[in-house]
Amino acid sequence: MARFLKNKSVALGNIPGDPVFIGDKKMEKTEIHIIEYDKNEIKEYDLEAKDITTLTLNKNKNTWININGLHDIEMLRSLADVFHIHMLTQEDIVNTGQRSKIEEYDNYLYFVMKMLQIDKNNLLVQSEQLSLILGENFLITFQERTGDVFTSVRNRLRKQKGRVRKMDTDYLAYSLLDCIIDRYMVIIEHFGEDIENIENAIQDNPDKSILNKIYDYKREMNYLRKTIRPVKECVSGFSRLDSDIINEKTLPFTKDLLDSVTQSLEIIDAYRDMLSDHLNIYSTNINNRLNEIMKILTIFSAIFIPLTFIAGIYGTNFDFLPELHFKYAYPIFWAILLLIAGLMLRFFKRKNWF
Amino acid sequence: MARFLKNKSVALGNIPGDPVFIGDKKMEKTEIHIIEYDKNEIKEYDLEAKDITTLTLNKNKNTWININGLHDIEMLRSLADVFHIHMLTQEDIVNTGQRSKIEEYDNYLYFVMKMLQIDKNNLLVQSEQLSLILGENFLITFQERTGDVFTSVRNRLRKQKGRVRKMDTDYLAYSLLDCIIDRYMVIIEHFGEDIENIENAIQDNPDKSILNKIYDYKREMNYLRKTIRPVKECVSGFSRLDSDIINEKTLPFTKDLLDSVTQSLEIIDAYRDMLSDHLNIYSTNINNRLNEIMKILTIFSAIFIPLTFIAGIYGTNFDFLPELHFKYAYPIFWAILLLIAGLMLRFFKRKNWF
Amino acid sequence: MARFLKNKSVALGNIPGDPVFIGDKKMEKTEIHIIEYDKNEIKEYDLEAKDITTLTLNKNKNTWININGLHDIEMLRSLADVFHIHMLTQEDIVNTGQRSKIEEYDNYLYFVMKMLQIDKNNLLVQSEQLSLILGENFLITFQERTGDVFTSVRNRLRKQKGRVRKMDTDYLAYSLLDCIIDRYMVIIEHFGEDIENIENAIQDNPDKSILNKIYDYKREMNYLRKTIRPVKECVSGFSRLDSDIINEKTLPFTKDLLDSVTQSLEIIDAYRDMLSDHLNIYSTNINNRLNEIMKILTIFSAIFIPLTFIAGIYGTNFDFLPELHFKYAYPIFWAILLLIAGLMLRFFKRKNWF
Amino acid sequence: MARFLKNKSVALGNIPGDPVFIGDKKMEKTEIHIIEYDKNEIKEYDLEAKDITTLTLNKNKNTWININGLHDIEMLRSLADVFHIHMLTQEDIVNTGQRSKIEEYDNYLYFVMKMLQIDKNNLLVQSEQLSLILGENFLITFQERTGDVFTSVRNRLRKQKGRVRKMDTDYLAYSLLDCIIDRYMVIIEHFGEDIENIENAIQDNPDKSILNKIYDYKREMNYLRKTIRPVKECVSGFSRLDSDIINEKTLPFTKDLLDSVTQSLEIIDAYRDMLSDHLNIYSTNINNRLNEIMKILTIFSAIFIPLTFIAGIYGTNFDFLPELHFKYAYPIFWAILLLIAGLMLRFFKRKNWF
Amino acid sequence: MARFLKNKSVALGNIPGDPVFIGDKKMEKTEIHIIEYDKNEIKEYDLEAKDITTLTLNKNKNTWININGLHDIEMLRSLADVFHIHMLTQEDIVNTGQRSKIEEYDNYLYFVMKMLQIDKNNLLVQSEQLSLILGENFLITFQERTGDVFTSVRNRLRKQKGRVRKMDTDYLAYSLLDCIIDRYMVIIEHFGEDIENIENAIQDNPDKSILNKIYDYKREMNYLRKTIRPVKECVSGFSRLDSDIINEKTLPFTKDLLDSVTQSLEIIDAYRDMLSDHLNIYSTNINNRLNEIMKILTIFSAIFIPLTFIAGIYGTNFDFLPELHFKYAYPIFWAILLLIAGLMLRFFKRKNWF
Repeated sequence: MARFLKNKSVALGNIPGDPVFIGDKKMEKTEIHIIEYDKNEIKEYDLEAKDITTLTLNKNKNTWININGLHDIEMLRSLADVFHIHMLTQEDIVNTGQRSKIEEYDNYLYFVMKMLQIDKNNLLVQSEQLSLILGENFLITFQERTGDVFTSVRNRLRKQKGRVRKMDTDYLAYSLLDCIIDRYMVIIEHFGEDIENIENAIQDNPDKSILNKIYDYKREMNYLRKTIRPVKECVSGFSRLDSDIINEKTLPFTKDLLDSVTQSLEIIDAYRDMLSDHLNIYSTNINNRLNEIMKILTIFSAIFIPLTFIAGIYGTNFDFLPELHFKYAYPIFWAILLLIAGLMLRFFKRKNWF
Repeated sequence: MARFLKNKSVALGNIPGDPVFIGDKKMEKTEIHIIEYDKNEIKEYDLEAKDITTLTLNKNKNTWININGLHDIEMLRSLADVFHIHMLTQEDIVNTGQRSKIEEYDNYLYFVMKMLQIDKNNLLVQSEQLSLILGENFLITFQERTGDVFTSVRNRLRKQKGRVRKMDTDYLAYSLLDCIIDRYMVIIEHFGEDIENIENAIQDNPDKSILNKIYDYKREMNYLRKTIRPVKECVSGFSRLDSDIINEKTLPFTKDLLDSVTQSLEIIDAYRDMLSDHLNIYSTNINNRLNEIMKILTIFSAIFIPLTFIAGIYGTNFDFLPELHFKYAYPIFWAILLLIAGLMLRFFKRKNWF
Repeated sequence: MARFLKNKSVALGNIPGDPVFIGDKKMEKTEIHIIEYDKNEIKEYDLEAKDITTLTLNKNKNTWININGLHDIEMLRSLADVFHIHMLTQEDIVNTGQRSKIEEYDNYLYFVMKMLQIDKNNLLVQSEQLSLILGENFLITFQERTGDVFTSVRNRLRKQKGRVRKMDTDYLAYSLLDCIIDRYMVIIEHFGEDIENIENAIQDNPDKSILNKIYDYKREMNYLRKTIRPVKECVSGFSRLDSDIINEKTLPFTKDLLDSVTQSLEIIDAYRDMLSDHLNIYSTNINNRLNEIMKILTIFSAIFIPLTFIAGIYGTNFDFLPELHFKYAYPIFWAILLLIAGLMLRFFKRKNWF
Repeated sequence: MARFLKNKSVALGNIPGDPVFIGDKKMEKTEIHIIEYDKNEIKEYDLEAKDITTLTLNKNKNTWININGLHDIEMLRSLADVFHIHMLTQEDIVNTGQRSKIEEYDNYLYFVMKMLQIDKNNLLVQSEQLSLILGENFLITFQERTGDVFTSVRNRLRKQKGRVRKMDTDYLAYSLLDCIIDRYMVIIEHFGEDIENIENAIQDNPDKSILNKIYDYKREMNYLRKTIRPVKECVSGFSRLDSDIINEKTLPFTKDLLDSVTQSLEIIDAYRDMLSDHLNIYSTNINNRLNEIMKILTIFSAIFIPLTFIAGIYGTNFDFLPELHFKYAYPIFWAILLLIAGLMLRFFKRKNWF
Repeated sequence: MARFLKNKSVALGNIPGDPVFIGDKKMEKTEIHIIEYDKNEIKEYDLEAKDITTLTLNKNKNTWININGLHDIEMLRSLADVFHIHMLTQEDIVNTGQRSKIEEYDNYLYFVMKMLQIDKNNLLVQSEQLSLILGENFLITFQERTGDVFTSVRNRLRKQKGRVRKMDTDYLAYSLLDCIIDRYMVIIEHFGEDIENIENAIQDNPDKSILNKIYDYKREMNYLRKTIRPVKECVSGFSRLDSDIINEKTLPFTKDLLDSVTQSLEIIDAYRDMLSDHLNIYSTNINNRLNEIMKILTIFSAIFIPLTFIAGIYGTNFDFLPELHFKYAYPIFWAILLLIAGLMLRFFKRKNWF
């Protein structure tokens, strides 16, 4: 199945702004987890999807609503009513083939991000869509399925580590984005080590498996680039936003995010160049080897084919073939053979073939 | 016939702004279909080309005039008089070789778009030109021939699904563009699956048909890119327009369009890169195979050519050839042959040839 | 002789702004043709070069002065005095190696354009320089030699077709540029058909003449791109001009010009990509063929070389060679030969070589 | 280990803004060296890490605090308290995988730079991170380990050479950046000489070691480009800063820096192009050689294989083989052999094979 | 020695703004030539380096001070004192490895330009640095050695040709830059003719010397591009300057300069593309030839190897080999040989191998 663009044909003919779940249903039941916190207190609880309408925000606290599983359109609609979420946002949340982007609406910011993880068996990077809705004192996150990406942030919230409890939901959103982008780096680093090491393998033993590896890495760098490039636009938009929702103190942190994404893309490009170089070198090496093979063949052929011919001459059965009857014919014959072989070897030696 | 640029020589010497039909006449008779609608009512009827001058707009309703078939210049001129359409617009409507673009005139916006469809037999993408003239409360669309692309929008209009009935003709125009761009995605996805799967075929069995496939896909990606790139400019212009004709509520939808086109182009570029990688890998694989073929040839030649030479020696008919008369000459001869063969095999083994 | 950059060495050491004819003298005698027109009347007459100083403009009419042949520096100087033409403009008019450009002077606009035509014998595109000086109510055009490019415009002027008679010299200038750029399209289309058709030839019968064709087309696309890219800048400047000389009504027409040039360049780029793909496919095809050739050679060699060796063995003249004297030696010998041949064939069959 | 992106996985899950040392600990003990200077006086002393809190700035003098070794987080925190350093800056100082950048904070400018040095044994460029914090009258520099890069600046300070003593810490910062960027140039020059000389080696004796060299240089150019490109952004930001900390007199010097970095990048790109050309030429040379090898093989084979066949014919033992009994059969046989050989040689001569 | 970047290691550790001569000393003694001129008068004289301090400007006249030879730092310092030249300018004048640039100082404009000349023996382009300091009524030029580049300008000054005597030093500076850039064109044209002609050579006789030529031209185009690209920035800056030193009447001339440099760069890029195409075609041609060589080898081998085998069969000495004793065995044997040969030829004919 196409990984670079998926499920677009399913969406054909949908009404724009009508939320229809497009993607693989990765969970049976939608999970809703809510964290309400301020500097002093933190409260966590789960909510049933059907009870979503009962949700009320405490205006003096920050509320993080995390929703795992995107197939429950009814729940999404109820939630959208509560938080005044635009229908295009609703559509994008459940249509998991979106590009990363940031959109500003009257009462909230909407982020689409891609979470990446690597399947180490077949070296395939897989992406999942994360949607964030960031309002004045709330943050709603939508994941395709339950994962452990945000565990570290949750722990910091619970244990009051870092400044996440002291600041508002905009900083919380930043923290989540930071988690995701750090993962990009780790994935790139994972490939990077292999990519930089391929060089030795090419020079030592350029077999076919290396060719497949180079190809696989090129494809994944291609995929990473395609996925992360829109993230840069999105983060860059975030860092340049002039919105009441973003506290001025959070801005330097968003610039830090931008640095990370930029560095990711630069390194992906450097690795792409490196892989192209790998492929060129591999290919030239193959040609070098062909030359060596052909030299060996040619040396053998050029020496022994004339010799065989001469032996063939004296294997003929002509009645009248005087040389056959000379006394020293046979030693002379050998001498001529050796002379020819010697001359040929000298010829190839002069050509620097061995 | 050239598909990338067509019928330009026909247009040579035409008067600028003089509408002359340039293209393949795909319909016998021009069809005019009119839908008049507002929130409460919808009225549909057909009109003969000759009756076009009788057309009057109801200023309190939205009117969508859909025209299939572009060869009837007379009808176009009459229509242009009714709606005050600039002569350059008239020329562009019937000259089907235009780039996609958006142009702002005093009383209307003019869009040229390309509708794409894929001929699955020979993997060729074909394009048709769609012109839209969007006025205050009317929308005129010109298609080269009757098709079913807009059926879903028509159904939504009739069945009051979505918000299309509640909003004005600018939203209707958006809906049509959305239909067209969704089709792009579906076409790209169709190719994408094949393109991503070629990889396995290259590694398993790189025969010539794959080479042709790679080439065909490259050509079509090239064609798609050439066709869709101007669409991006056009949609981008649409989303940045500051025109009375565009309702502010429609703007987020145009940004959504822009996202889709941008994503299309990014994926086309990713596939182009992937196809170039495919071709490189294919080509390197071919070279790898050549090396293997040559290794086999060289091993056989290098082993048997010397042996044949030695056999040739003892096939000579020299009167005086002492070895022939030794008692154990023949077994020794075999021993020497086997020794030579063994040494050669060891030589190639050491070179890691097998 | 260099076609991409010519006659620069001739110009070395010239005084800047000093008009010196640089180019091939393509006409014996300079021809001056004058058309004076307004909505109601049109008057045409020829002028001798020496009478240029007698020229007076009718301020209520539009005057188009067309000059064929650039070598008459005296005439140019006289004309320049009459129309207050800057010395740099004078230099550029007669130095035919200019890039296309637009320059705004106090009392006129100066255009340098390249007219292209294709020499169908050797597939070479040739360029000629056209200079336009556009003033309030006059237009002076300078061509290297008499041609028929502007015949259609002249006819429209004479026959009052289109709007050219109703509008001023700025629209006339636009009409001439439109003629020239339409020609670009026709040339590109001429190449385009061939380029798109090469594909089949590559797959059917990739001989050397195709390689030369690919190369020729690449060179010409290169040439077209180099020539037309500055035209885009020039036309883009034209459409963004804020000059009294340009009537507001002419502006939509200049945007139309820009569309055409942009499309030309996009298609040239698409063809460039396509030709690079052609070359890659051709080259990979050649390698594919080499593989097939080598497979045939290897199969033949690997089968017959061992057989010949075995035949050689029993051609030796050893006194004591027991197999020779067995009764069924010869049939067994054949059986062994066939067995070996069969095994070899199976070996290559398994390798999928045939 | 990956050199292009390192230690990112270690940083995973860190709290943003929390300084955690990420890198190789290159020194046992942190060294702090302080230089206090003005036009008239200069005072130098070392400080223990634990005494950092005792540090007081003399507001009338310039103070340069140089810190070698980044692992002492406690010391960094104390210093940060004294100089009001933002927590993100703290994090960046000790996380040695940063891109080069410049950041403006309320009371200081923060630079991250990369110092490069070349390991001449294995041609690897290694980078170390340098952080500069530039305040009103102080400059703090953080290096990964003690080095001699800044010795020349220190000497100028001590000996009052140049204008460094007469100007403020912004000029000092410039001087240090200038040192670093000069080193880039020297490294590029070191590679450049080799790269430009490879050309002769390719033409004379294109063996495999050259291929590896080309590859190594490509990789290092890739690395240099990736490392220096952000430096350009950083220096460009420096030269466009509108900050009280930067004296107007220092600005021309920053433009000079920008020139140097731009030149570095241009030359790296020129060398990258050159190396790609090298590789292409090398590869085409290899193919040229293959052609020569195959010509030799083919000439030998095509001459001797038919001859051997003819000899084989007359080696057959048919009872009735009339030619064998002709008197002049043997000389005629030789004549035929020589004729065939001569014809073959002429055939290859005509093909220009030798 | 590296030509693309030179002598940077020598400059390491220099004090910024401290003029140290870096380059090859190309003259023994510094020459100073002064031309003082206005519309009516011109005065020329030489000055000893040591008398530089005696120089006084006549404020009502224009003064052009031309200095050949850059190693005399003392003289430079004295001159700098007289004309208030910034220390960074001083450093750049004598450090001959600068990029071309324009810098605006309070009382003068500073240009660094590269003069190119071609060494026709080894096709190497060499560059020399020219510095211009353009003040209100003076122009100082610094060349590495005496040359004849400016002779034509000097003659125009002396003979009152063109407008150089009527205008001020800004026009003089323009005239010198124009000389230099015209030379670029001539050099490009020199290469261009060869580059465009290589095509025929590739198709006729693609030997190794052509490969070296392609490579040499690529390298020089690379060098020209690297050298001229900064010149474009510099000239572009010149044409956009808003400085009292530049007379408004000179501005159209600077735009003309910009046109020339832009054209140079476009043509260099076109030639770069063409050379890459040359290389591709050359390489594909080589492969084509290899195919032909291998076809010949394979045809010979495939025909004669089986024949030789059959001859070998009947050369065996089996006691019981019935065919040998048939009466018509030998003619039948020949018939079989010819049949096999015929079948093989037909096989290769069908494959279109000849």
